[in-house]
Amino acid sequence: MCLLDQTQLPEVEAYVTLTTIAAVVDAMKRLVVRGAPALGCAAAYAMALELPTTDSVDTWLAQLKKNARALEAARPTAVNLGVGVHLQLKLGHSLATSGQGNPSTWTEQLVQAAQAFHFADQESCMALSEQAQGLLHDGASVLTHCNAGALATGGLGTALGPLHLAHSRGVKFQVYADETRPLRQGTRLTAWELARHGIAVSVLPDSAAATLLAQGKVDLIFVGSDRIAANGDVANKLGTYPLAVLAKRHGVPFYVLAPGTTIDSACPNGSGIPIEQRDAAELYDAARQPEGVDVFNPAFDVTPAELVSAIITEHGLFQPHGPHQGLWVDYVNSLKA
Amino acid sequence: MCLLDQTQLPEVEAYVTLTTIAAVVDAMKRLVVRGAPALGCAAAYAMALELPTTDSVDTWLAQLKKNARALEAARPTAVNLGVGVHLQLKLGHSLATSGQGNPSTWTEQLVQAAQAFHFADQESCMALSEQAQGLLHDGASVLTHCNAGALATGGLGTALGPLHLAHSRGVKFQVYADETRPLRQGTRLTAWELARHGIAVSVLPDSAAATLLAQGKVDLIFVGSDRIAANGDVANKLGTYPLAVLAKRHGVPFYVLAPGTTIDSACPNGSGIPIEQRDAAELYDAARQPEGVDVFNPAFDVTPAELVSAIITEHGLFQPHGPHQGLWVDYVNSLKA
Repeated sequence: MCLLDQTQLPEVEAYVTLTTIAAVVDAMKRLVVRGAPALGCAAAYAMALELPTTDSVDTWLAQLKKNARALEAARPTAVNLGVGVHLQLKLGHSLATSGQGNPSTWTEQLVQAAQAFHFADQESCMALSEQAQGLLHDGASVLTHCNAGALATGGLGTALGPLHLAHSRGVKFQVYADETRPLRQGTRLTAWELARHGIAVSVLPDSAAATLLAQGKVDLIFVGSDRIAANGDVANKLGTYPLAVLAKRHGVPFYVLAPGTTIDSACPNGSGIPIEQRDAAELYDAARQPEGVDVFNPAFDVTPAELVSAIITEHGLFQPHGPHQGLWVDYVNSLKA
Repeated sequence: MCLLDQTQLPEVEAYVTLTTIAAVVDAMKRLVVRGAPALGCAAAYAMALELPTTDSVDTWLAQLKKNARALEAARPTAVNLGVGVHLQLKLGHSLATSGQGNPSTWTEQLVQAAQAFHFADQESCMALSEQAQGLLHDGASVLTHCNAGALATGGLGTALGPLHLAHSRGVKFQVYADETRPLRQGTRLTAWELARHGIAVSVLPDSAAATLLAQGKVDLIFVGSDRIAANGDVANKLGTYPLAVLAKRHGVPFYVLAPGTTIDSACPNGSGIPIEQRDAAELYDAARQPEGVDVFNPAFDVTPAELVSAIITEHGLFQPHGPHQGLWVDYVNSLKA
């Protein structure tokens, strides 16, 4: 499989070809590919790697399961990664018990399933962008955090999807993109992605979002998500929760945009979402970490549902907190089916 | 004058010798020396540079005024810088009208006045640290932002002063230090300053403070200030305001520690405090700024008095908001006298 190496953006646009599970896992850990929906697509494709050309169902299935274990452990928070893996695992088991064809032909079926999963993500991005783009109007000012754009999905993006769509329809708006420490997805990826499409974008240190909000310069906030609990609590890139608290204080609507695959209906609330801890080196870059200094570096945080104005998926706009909570509960239950 | 070059910390401990006003202004702009009280001391010493050996009062005074204009323009937010400059300007005028001695001897008097100002800052640090250290106890967990330590003052520090004092008295506590983007004063300076004194310190991305607060891991917050308005609104390093909002949400006391010189009694409220805008390059470091991308990079933000649990100076602990507001008003008025 071939991926754009996001660690080198915006300086270098380089593609890497990965042919082993170990290489894919390493690429996921280093954020060569990142963003929950994109991780789901990459995992679905990767499941078809290293499968042996063999007549033995057991040998083929054993490798498929080995692939699944390695991929699932790469990044714990993004629920879509597990969705992509389990879809393929289920298909593999179903093929193995079908008695139709033999393992050598099944691998190709996994590749086709990955493509279908990828296309479905594209369609979800387009549909949720269509749902959300009406919130934008000429002169609007939108703040976003991290990168939930085309780089983070199989399609147009989640939080950035409606921006791409509205821009293509001639709506003129201003985007503010948080830097997003420590890995700077905002300054490196979101700014690059929006600017190359001709969308007006300003970047800022994460802490400066509070000043913008206090000055009344933000009309609405769009963020993505890595996992949404059944009650509407949202795990997303570190820095999302403080942004939601500030949005509430300043009366600015806070929207979470994600495909239905990001909703983990088996997870009752945010406290059940595993939060990945990242390496100390991310805070010290090339610099020397002073001796005796510890590092606290969680990759994500959890925003309680009460701070979320709405969750927008390809199926509509839902309010997990407040008078319309019932519609959200029905929606989550429908995803279980 | 000789200064520790803080831009090179923690990798290199190097000192620079500055002999011209232009060199001092450049050092201030590049944050070779930074922190409001330290800027005040540096400015007071710098006022004695480049003064001519002359018998002409006018020539001597003209250079002193030129020094004042250049130094005051170096960094607009830190009120102490102006205090250091104006103290010397007043002394210079008073010497010029005294008719005693001649300009060649007055320069040495300015150096002595700078030393006295520096010593007074040391004493203020010690006194306010003594006022605040009782808030610390064994097992306490303190969060701080930016660097308001020995590196930022002429003495023990403001926000970090009570930590140094309590540590020297055997109190065991944990410090969390925000990274403080974009110039990383937390990871570079605060971590280095505390670790070399044997104080337990963990650093974190600025956005992770919200997670720590939500997890109940912070007992109290200590920050410094660059300028405090008469109503108790506090200008401090960008990121202080969102921290105060989060502290309020999670019921964690939020203390501002500063010498009385940081209070600008002529400034009625936060909207009157000039906020320095910094260069775009700070957000892109060595990386390429994508074409068409703007940068919003204010160095400071303003925390409204209602979010401040107390302001602690060398004269005591004051509550600018709430039932004890009157004591604060009296205190600010006493500083005008």
